[in-house]
Amino acid sequence: MNITAPYLLFLGDATDKLSIKMAQGVADWRPDLCVGQLRLPGCEVSTNLPDMSIQDAHAKGAKTFVLGFANSGGTIDPSWVPYIIEALNAGLNIVSGLHDKLTDIAEIRQAAAAKGLQLIDIRHPQQKFKTANGVSRSGKRLLTVGTDCSVGKMYTSLALEKAMKQHGFDVDFRATGQCGILIAGSGVAIDCVVADFIAGASESLSPANEPLHWDIIEGQGSLSHPAFAGVSLGLLHGAQPDALVICHALGRSSMRGLSHCLPPSISDTIAMNLAAAKLTNPDCSIAGIAINTSSVDEEEALLICERITAEFKLPCVDPLRHGVDMIIERLS
Amino acid sequence: MNITAPYLLFLGDATDKLSIKMAQGVADWRPDLCVGQLRLPGCEVSTNLPDMSIQDAHAKGAKTFVLGFANSGGTIDPSWVPYIIEALNAGLNIVSGLHDKLTDIAEIRQAAAAKGLQLIDIRHPQQKFKTANGVSRSGKRLLTVGTDCSVGKMYTSLALEKAMKQHGFDVDFRATGQCGILIAGSGVAIDCVVADFIAGASESLSPANEPLHWDIIEGQGSLSHPAFAGVSLGLLHGAQPDALVICHALGRSSMRGLSHCLPPSISDTIAMNLAAAKLTNPDCSIAGIAINTSSVDEEEALLICERITAEFKLPCVDPLRHGVDMIIERLS
Repeated sequence: MNITAPYLLFLGDATDKLSIKMAQGVADWRPDLCVGQLRLPGCEVSTNLPDMSIQDAHAKGAKTFVLGFANSGGTIDPSWVPYIIEALNAGLNIVSGLHDKLTDIAEIRQAAAAKGLQLIDIRHPQQKFKTANGVSRSGKRLLTVGTDCSVGKMYTSLALEKAMKQHGFDVDFRATGQCGILIAGSGVAIDCVVADFIAGASESLSPANEPLHWDIIEGQGSLSHPAFAGVSLGLLHGAQPDALVICHALGRSSMRGLSHCLPPSISDTIAMNLAAAKLTNPDCSIAGIAINTSSVDEEEALLICERITAEFKLPCVDPLRHGVDMIIERLS
Repeated sequence: MNITAPYLLFLGDATDKLSIKMAQGVADWRPDLCVGQLRLPGCEVSTNLPDMSIQDAHAKGAKTFVLGFANSGGTIDPSWVPYIIEALNAGLNIVSGLHDKLTDIAEIRQAAAAKGLQLIDIRHPQQKFKTANGVSRSGKRLLTVGTDCSVGKMYTSLALEKAMKQHGFDVDFRATGQCGILIAGSGVAIDCVVADFIAGASESLSPANEPLHWDIIEGQGSLSHPAFAGVSLGLLHGAQPDALVICHALGRSSMRGLSHCLPPSISDTIAMNLAAAKLTNPDCSIAGIAINTSSVDEEEALLICERITAEFKLPCVDPLRHGVDMIIERLS
């Protein structure tokens, strides 16, 4: 799954900041990949990229029109289709992270075929994967794992990649979710592959590499999430990580989407992930802990991270507030 | 996924007993669902059901023509297509457990449509599943889990269902693999669903039921198998089992298909599965251990089961040699 930059980010008529997470992610981490955003009347949110028409975006070199939002049900609203067609007519490929497929809409399919342009439904991987073989491979890999879904695994992974590049590491970010794939320009939507191939897809995403090369693999879900733990485990086994970074968000009283489920402790999360990781990499260790401290102030955030550092004898940081250098120091 | 019995089992030109596992399973467990088998010249194996032409099978009431074998790659050989067409023309639905889809072959699709008959590709579930909600539900559930793949989880599940029926339990077998689905006439090929929905599909397979009703759920893979553990974990979380039966095959020196991976101990398998199960059912316990002792003689089989019974203080039997009554005594 390879996506051609630069992008025009289509926000539709989104009114909720969370619903444009995909567009915001690429605007934050790869503004150089974006020429601007297109918002429809009624849209109340912004990535803070310049507003732009499809024609202007094309004139500025845009190659791909990105449906950068999510809605309940993941449907493609008929009112968006004319914009998709206009983008195709202007010569742009289309990317969607919605459940509905672009390729299921005849008008879109025909316009793309007529222009020889790509329709990329990120949530419907077309690749054929093999089942995992579990054979140890060269190169080094780090996987971010979480106490829950949506605790900052992608942001932590990207912060690690960025800082490691600055420190001269040979490193690649390996994306496993829609937003990450848009940022990386490639990857596998791991929760969308057929169950038999989760670990196999994870192996193919982070293949054998130079001995000192690092893959920083974006984690998904949580071993403690009753709906998605299977995805997390297959990803973990296929990644064969040398290092794990535990990601956690302060202030969660229940698992995401499941008000009756308590989040696990950091300690249990370390134990569970390490035990599972050792099946395919007995040398796996914990490199650090990344906390999303956005619910508290700077001072409290620092105190909490210091306390966790002392408790686990592992570097603990909020990647966005403190950077990740303390974690990188443990990688070699 | 509902399959209409009785079946005519098509063995193609299979030469290997293992390759007709699906046909053999239904012939062994539900001979009443089968009118016979159809073998092509070159076929060197048999389910021991009577050989029969498609016309004769139809005359005997067959409703479904079952491609009851597997081949490397899971392809539909062009030489089988005329038999499939003949079966459709005789008014039989078609079931296949191969990777290739019946519905991808225009000639087959058209013949089925013309007759209003069903084409069921077991490995390509058409159902839409929800993601799991992890909410506790009424009724009782038992899941078979394994030290490895292909250790006897389906046979153990069916033996439990059969014996529980004899003992007056209100019980259903819930199938999660091709062969089980054929035997049950319904189920979900759990390793073929999209990764996000493993646990959700597992929840829908064993829904809320009467307080004393038991679902006996066929396990898949193993938490210790590097390729398939994700499927096993999602199935386990969705099943919310009250009871687990640990399945193990004697004489394995490595995990199935992975010569470099050692099988786990029974003790580790118990600990891992119980810890994972408690996420969605804190009251889960181990009901017993089922050993495939086919590699040793009767006497040794009995000694081994007695030793394991003593070691774990849990009933340990070979379901085919000793029955499963000792395990059922622990269920209420």
